[in-house]
Amino acid sequence: MSHYNRIAGQSVERLCALSDGVFAVAMTLLVLDLHAPAMEAVHGERDLLAALWLLGPRLLVYMLSFLTLGIFWLGQQTQLNYVERGDRDFSWIHLAFLFAVTLTPFSTALMAEFIAYRSALVLYWLNILALGALLFASWGYLERARLLKPSLPAGVAAAVCRRIVVAQALYAAGAALCAYSTTLSLGVIVLLQLNYVIAPRLGPLSRL
Amino acid sequence: MSHYNRIAGQSVERLCALSDGVFAVAMTLLVLDLHAPAMEAVHGERDLLAALWLLGPRLLVYMLSFLTLGIFWLGQQTQLNYVERGDRDFSWIHLAFLFAVTLTPFSTALMAEFIAYRSALVLYWLNILALGALLFASWGYLERARLLKPSLPAGVAAAVCRRIVVAQALYAAGAALCAYSTTLSLGVIVLLQLNYVIAPRLGPLSRL
Amino acid sequence: MSHYNRIAGQSVERLCALSDGVFAVAMTLLVLDLHAPAMEAVHGERDLLAALWLLGPRLLVYMLSFLTLGIFWLGQQTQLNYVERGDRDFSWIHLAFLFAVTLTPFSTALMAEFIAYRSALVLYWLNILALGALLFASWGYLERARLLKPSLPAGVAAAVCRRIVVAQALYAAGAALCAYSTTLSLGVIVLLQLNYVIAPRLGPLSRL
Amino acid sequence: MSHYNRIAGQSVERLCALSDGVFAVAMTLLVLDLHAPAMEAVHGERDLLAALWLLGPRLLVYMLSFLTLGIFWLGQQTQLNYVERGDRDFSWIHLAFLFAVTLTPFSTALMAEFIAYRSALVLYWLNILALGALLFASWGYLERARLLKPSLPAGVAAAVCRRIVVAQALYAAGAALCAYSTTLSLGVIVLLQLNYVIAPRLGPLSRL
Repeated sequence: MSHYNRIAGQSVERLCALSDGVFAVAMTLLVLDLHAPAMEAVHGERDLLAALWLLGPRLLVYMLSFLTLGIFWLGQQTQLNYVERGDRDFSWIHLAFLFAVTLTPFSTALMAEFIAYRSALVLYWLNILALGALLFASWGYLERARLLKPSLPAGVAAAVCRRIVVAQALYAAGAALCAYSTTLSLGVIVLLQLNYVIAPRLGPLSRL
Repeated sequence: MSHYNRIAGQSVERLCALSDGVFAVAMTLLVLDLHAPAMEAVHGERDLLAALWLLGPRLLVYMLSFLTLGIFWLGQQTQLNYVERGDRDFSWIHLAFLFAVTLTPFSTALMAEFIAYRSALVLYWLNILALGALLFASWGYLERARLLKPSLPAGVAAAVCRRIVVAQALYAAGAALCAYSTTLSLGVIVLLQLNYVIAPRLGPLSRL
Repeated sequence: MSHYNRIAGQSVERLCALSDGVFAVAMTLLVLDLHAPAMEAVHGERDLLAALWLLGPRLLVYMLSFLTLGIFWLGQQTQLNYVERGDRDFSWIHLAFLFAVTLTPFSTALMAEFIAYRSALVLYWLNILALGALLFASWGYLERARLLKPSLPAGVAAAVCRRIVVAQALYAAGAALCAYSTTLSLGVIVLLQLNYVIAPRLGPLSRL
Repeated sequence: MSHYNRIAGQSVERLCALSDGVFAVAMTLLVLDLHAPAMEAVHGERDLLAALWLLGPRLLVYMLSFLTLGIFWLGQQTQLNYVERGDRDFSWIHLAFLFAVTLTPFSTALMAEFIAYRSALVLYWLNILALGALLFASWGYLERARLLKPSLPAGVAAAVCRRIVVAQALYAAGAALCAYSTTLSLGVIVLLQLNYVIAPRLGPLSRL
C-alpha cells in the first residue's frame, strides 16, 4: 500500500461524526413526506380526522424506517466504541455501510407503496441484508487488522458476530415467507425488528 | 438480557451527537417552506410588501416550532449532561424521543393550517405531551438503572421531574381550553412557551 | 430563577454541535435549488452552455449566501472558543442567533429575485443586522454573567465588539445607499463581505 | 492583520464538525431523488421490476457521487488530523472547499443527464479539480503558516501533495479524452475513482 493510503482515515471520531450526521439527516428527512391535508378538502372536524386517518399508513412506514435506522445506528455505535484507531480500508467499509443507510428510506417507501409485490419485499430485505453484511465485514476487518482496543472484554467479539448472524438468518427466513404471502413476510420482519427494539427478557426471545 | 444487549449503546457522546444532528436538521428544514413570492405577481414595492405580509403567519408558525424544538433541545441537553454512561434501553427511549422531535414540524404545520379545528390542536398537544413524557420516562429509567453521574448535585433530580410535570400540567390545561375556543387554547400554549424561553424573574412565574 | 433554570443549558460543546449542524444543513440545502436544465430543451452543446449560463445568477446568489453564513459561522465559533460554560439565558440568545441563520437562505433568495426592490434589500440587511446584533448581545451577556474563560487574553473582548460594531455600521451605510440605487447598495454589501472573507492586508482595509 | 482576524477561526474541532455535517447532508440528500415508481403504472411484478430497472442509471449516478464525496471526505479528514490549530485564512480556504463539496450533487446530476455532452463532463471535471486544488492550497497554507502538528511524521507532507497532484493529473488526462469520446472519458474517471476507493495492492496501481 502506498504511503498516502497508510496515513489516510485514521480518525475514528470523524467517522463517528459523519455516521451520526448521515443517520440524523436520514431519520429527519423522512417525515417531510408527511404533509398536512389540503385545506380545500376539509370542511369540518370530521373531514380533518378522516384525512389524518388516511395518513396513518404513511406514518407507520415512517416508524418502521426509523426502527430500522435505530437498530443499525445502535449496531455501528456499539462496534465503533471498541475501535482503537481507523485506517482507510475500514473507513471505506464503513462508508459503504453509510451508503446502504441512505438507501433505507427508498426501499422502505417502495415496500409501503407495493406491499403485495414480492420484488418490493425482496429489495427491502436486500437492504437490511446489506446493512448487516457490511457491519459483519467491518467487524471482521477490524479483528484481522488489529484495530480493536486491547481492552476489548472477552466475549464481545463473539456476541457482536452472533447477534448479526442470528438476526440476519431470521430476517432471511422472514423474507423467504414471501413465497407464501408478502403480508405474512412483512409482519414477521416487523415483529423481528420490534423484538430487537424492545429486547423482551423472555426465555427464548432474549437469546435471539 | 443477552450479552449483546449488555454491551450495546453505551456511548453518551454518540447519542448527544445524533440528537444535535436531528434537532439541527429539523430546525433548519422548516424554513425551506418559506418561498420568495412569485415574480410575475409583483409589479412594484407595494406588491412585494403585500406578498411578504402574507408570509407573516407562516413565519410565526415557524418561530413557534423553533421555540418548541429549542425548549426540548435544552431539556434533553440538561438531562444528558448528568448521564454517566448509556445502555441500550436508555438509547431506545431517547430514540423514541427523537422520533417525536421529527414529528414536531408536521404537527405544527397542521395546527397552523387548521387553527380553528380542535383535532389539530389536540394533535399538537399530543406531540408536546409525547416529548415531555419520553423525557420524563428517560430520566426515571436513568435513576432506576443507576446511569447518572455519582456527582449529581442534590435536588437536580427533583428539579428535572418537577419542571416536566408542571410544564405538562400547564400545557394540558391550555389544551383543555379548546373545548371553549381553539384560539384561546393556542394563545395560552404560546404564552407558556414564551414563559419557558424568557424565564421572567417575576414572583409566581419564576416558579413554573 | 427557579432551580431548573439554574442547571439548564450548561454544555457549551452541545451548543457548538447544534450550531455546526444548523450551519451545515443551511449551507448544503441551498444548492438543491440548482437543477440540471430540462433534457427536452437541449439539442446540442450550444443549448446546454446557454442553459448553464442562465443558472449563473442563481449560483452567484448561492455563493453570496455561503459567504454570509461563513462569516457568521466564524464569528460564533470565535466567540464560543472563549466561553467557559453556558447557562440557559445564553443558550436562548444563541438559539435566537441560529434562528436568524436559518432565515438567511430565504432573505438571500428574496433579494436575488427582486434585485431592483428596496424592500427586498432592506429585508436582507435586517437579516444581517439581526445576526450581528444577536452575536453582540450574546457577547455582552457572556461578559456580564462572567461565563468567559478566565484565561481570556486582554483585548479580545474589545476586538470582538469593535469588529461587530464596525461591520454593522458599514452594512447599514451600504444598505442606506438603496435610497439612491439598490444595485449600488447591493454591490457595496458584496464588497464588504468579500473584504471580511479575504481580509486584505492593505492599510485602511485591514482595520475594518 | 487586525486583532480580530488574529483570534478568529482557531478551533479545528469546530471546522471538523462543520465539514462532517456538510458531507453528511450532501451524501444523504442525493438519495431523495430516488422515488418509488408511480403506483398507477404498475400492474404486476413484471411492471415493478421494469420500473425499478429504469431507476438503475440514477442509482449508479448516486453511487458515483457518493464515491467522489467519500474520496474527498477521507482527503480532508487525513489533512485535518495533522493540524495543530487553525486560523481565519485556513478556515476560509476550507470553507471554499466545502462550497465545492456542496456543488458536487449538481455537477454529477448534470453529467448523468447529459452524458453525451462535453460541456457537462468538463464541468464535472472542473468540480473535481476545484476540490483537489483547494485541498492542495489548504495543505500549502498549513505548511507556510506553521499550523501543522510538530509531531508530523516525515514523509507525510510529501505523500499528501503527491497523492493530490498524481490524482488530479490522471483526472485531467481522463477528462481530456472527451475530445475523442465522452463515454470513454467518463469510464476512465469512474475507474480512477474505483482505484482510489479499492486501493488494489497491485504493483503500478498501488503507487498512483
